[in-house]
Amino acid sequence: MSTYDPQNIFAKILRGEIPCTKVYEDEHTIAFMDIMPQADGHTLIVPKNPSVNLLDADAATFGPLFTTVQKIARAVKSGMDADGVVITQFNEAAAGQTVFHLHVHVIPRWEGVALRKHSGAMADSALLQAHAEKIKAAL
Amino acid sequence: MSTYDPQNIFAKILRGEIPCTKVYEDEHTIAFMDIMPQADGHTLIVPKNPSVNLLDADAATFGPLFTTVQKIARAVKSGMDADGVVITQFNEAAAGQTVFHLHVHVIPRWEGVALRKHSGAMADSALLQAHAEKIKAAL
Repeated sequence: MSTYDPQNIFAKILRGEIPCTKVYEDEHTIAFMDIMPQADGHTLIVPKNPSVNLLDADAATFGPLFTTVQKIARAVKSGMDADGVVITQFNEAAAGQTVFHLHVHVIPRWEGVALRKHSGAMADSALLQAHAEKIKAAL
Repeated sequence: MSTYDPQNIFAKILRGEIPCTKVYEDEHTIAFMDIMPQADGHTLIVPKNPSVNLLDADAATFGPLFTTVQKIARAVKSGMDADGVVITQFNEAAAGQTVFHLHVHVIPRWEGVALRKHSGAMADSALLQAHAEKIKAAL
């Protein structure tokens, strides 16, 4: 099990030290666009409560976190006109975790459209902003 | 959005009409082995509260559901001696959903071991039982 490093990039986003393309924020969670999206509209939901991943999280985090995941999943599906939504959450490097602050991926899917690989190219920030606007309009 | 069909196989498992290789059960949730595992130890967590998927679920479901997901994820990692754990949840057929009762996949990962395809062959039931025993022993 990794230990929590408060210098991870999501902690910096939560403290406002680095920017994000924000979609939603409430008392317990923040949602913003993944900068290396596997599909247009790929959004991350991050609890403000710090933990490395789901394994070491305070269980009290889960209700508020997945209430926001549901809200964002509905808005991503509707705002991006998707046919379905995949939700993924990775624990430890062997499972694909790259940022060690608990986060949940919400990824829209369309019939016949394959996912892109994660950790590919950085998306154009104007395009991310345009997708964020579609999702926010559907919240 | 699909409508909830009480004849889906997870509803039948919840009613005890068809068997499963059970790992855990509490007031709100049940966990059992996926019969077409993507990796040894692939476990499903199903809330007793009926919904098609996460999109139409009562938000009150999420706290108890993901508290069990965490419990199972820890036990799968420990019991199966895994390096990490992937958690996935699919909404609608376009996203890979095949049983239309909300469920969460907990899949162990080991460094250098690729996932098998889902919907491949049915696993041997004695092998599923052996994996279930390892996970139960780690609960």
